[in-house]
Amino acid sequence: MVTKQEIKVIKSLSQKKYRQQLELFTVEGVKGIEEFLNSNIKLSKLYTTKQIFSAPKNQIIEISGNELRKISALKNPNTALAVFEIPKPVEVEDKGLIVALDDVRDPGNLGTIIRLCDWYGVKNMVCSNSTVDCYNPKVVQATMGSLTRVNITYTELSKFIQNRKVSVFGTYMNGESIYNAHLPNEALIVFGNEANGISETINSIIDKKITIPQFGIGKDTESLNVANAAAIVLSEFRRRTIEM
Amino acid sequence: MVTKQEIKVIKSLSQKKYRQQLELFTVEGVKGIEEFLNSNIKLSKLYTTKQIFSAPKNQIIEISGNELRKISALKNPNTALAVFEIPKPVEVEDKGLIVALDDVRDPGNLGTIIRLCDWYGVKNMVCSNSTVDCYNPKVVQATMGSLTRVNITYTELSKFIQNRKVSVFGTYMNGESIYNAHLPNEALIVFGNEANGISETINSIIDKKITIPQFGIGKDTESLNVANAAAIVLSEFRRRTIEM
Repeated sequence: MVTKQEIKVIKSLSQKKYRQQLELFTVEGVKGIEEFLNSNIKLSKLYTTKQIFSAPKNQIIEISGNELRKISALKNPNTALAVFEIPKPVEVEDKGLIVALDDVRDPGNLGTIIRLCDWYGVKNMVCSNSTVDCYNPKVVQATMGSLTRVNITYTELSKFIQNRKVSVFGTYMNGESIYNAHLPNEALIVFGNEANGISETINSIIDKKITIPQFGIGKDTESLNVANAAAIVLSEFRRRTIEM
Repeated sequence: MVTKQEIKVIKSLSQKKYRQQLELFTVEGVKGIEEFLNSNIKLSKLYTTKQIFSAPKNQIIEISGNELRKISALKNPNTALAVFEIPKPVEVEDKGLIVALDDVRDPGNLGTIIRLCDWYGVKNMVCSNSTVDCYNPKVVQATMGSLTRVNITYTELSKFIQNRKVSVFGTYMNGESIYNAHLPNEALIVFGNEANGISETINSIIDKKITIPQFGIGKDTESLNVANAAAIVLSEFRRRTIEM
């Protein structure tokens, strides 16, 4: 059974303010919950309509389908909803590739970029405070569990970048072609806002402007979607490792 | 003014059945509509709250904000809605790169892939009949005008592929690394369904299985999102042109 007070708390976790206050976030669906249970992220409570999870008994609460619908943010809730503790931020070392997001607003884009970082072995992501929260339920859903394997830090991005020793790359419409540019094994790569790209403050501290060359003829072709740009750029950085 | 009958027709165009029957589709928002007006796609009617478009007067209907809300599929309609004629299918030549989609279901993914094809100069896309309709309003929205520059054909995909002369590439989890594989200038590249990948029927007619190598350590890492996979594969095909 789930109490009225619990419903209120769980519902409040759809808002960033309450997630930050309570240091908790929600995960829905069997597969997603299992990925988080198998990670270092700590379970708070697991509400489920079927007893199919391996978690301490005192943290599992059996509920009805009706109760699940009351706490779920999904149109079609899937078996269970779990509440996990937001992990403490870890220090980001100047090692390997670091992906920095400057004001990425769309939850789907952030989720997909986290998945890409996981795929390409990028252990650390750093986000401007204006970037959408990675514990937003839509982001958690879109990451497909990759959130358990990538460290994500929210900070004042310009300050963070200025304190780095590695080269800072930014993706622009008018930089050097990524296919020709020297792309090192250790670097910080900045991706900007969906509509406005990289902000002026960050612009001034970019070491190297890179561009994904366009092959189409349409003069009006819009820039690429930020997650697709990240996919292409990360692939290009990583393929160099093989060539070496 | 917009009549009750017009509202009914426009509303019906959110459904594939009626789009196919009437051979019409809708575009919303100033920027999107302008891209279509500047293309070869024929305007049927343009409903707008502001007279800011260059289109024949007898096709422009001035409406109120309230009327726009009645015909719009958006929460926050933007100035205008236009109805265009679905273009007649064009014959797909065995030239350059052709992207084939085998049962891609998500409108956002299809929209992004159309945008990628535009970026990378892929003029022809071929979709299985089960792939989401490219004139679905969500797809039109996501393409950002690229739909005006890429020809898209819906057909029985296996039959279409069997009649091609070019090599047929498919993206799999266990093929040859795209970074090492020979990728020709002329090819048909198949991307599969979001959950199940390429279907069995198509599997058997793929000439070359390719894979995007994974660099992460997470053994549970899910496959990449199909639009991201398309981004990486198209980038890799096109960069070879530069190397040659």
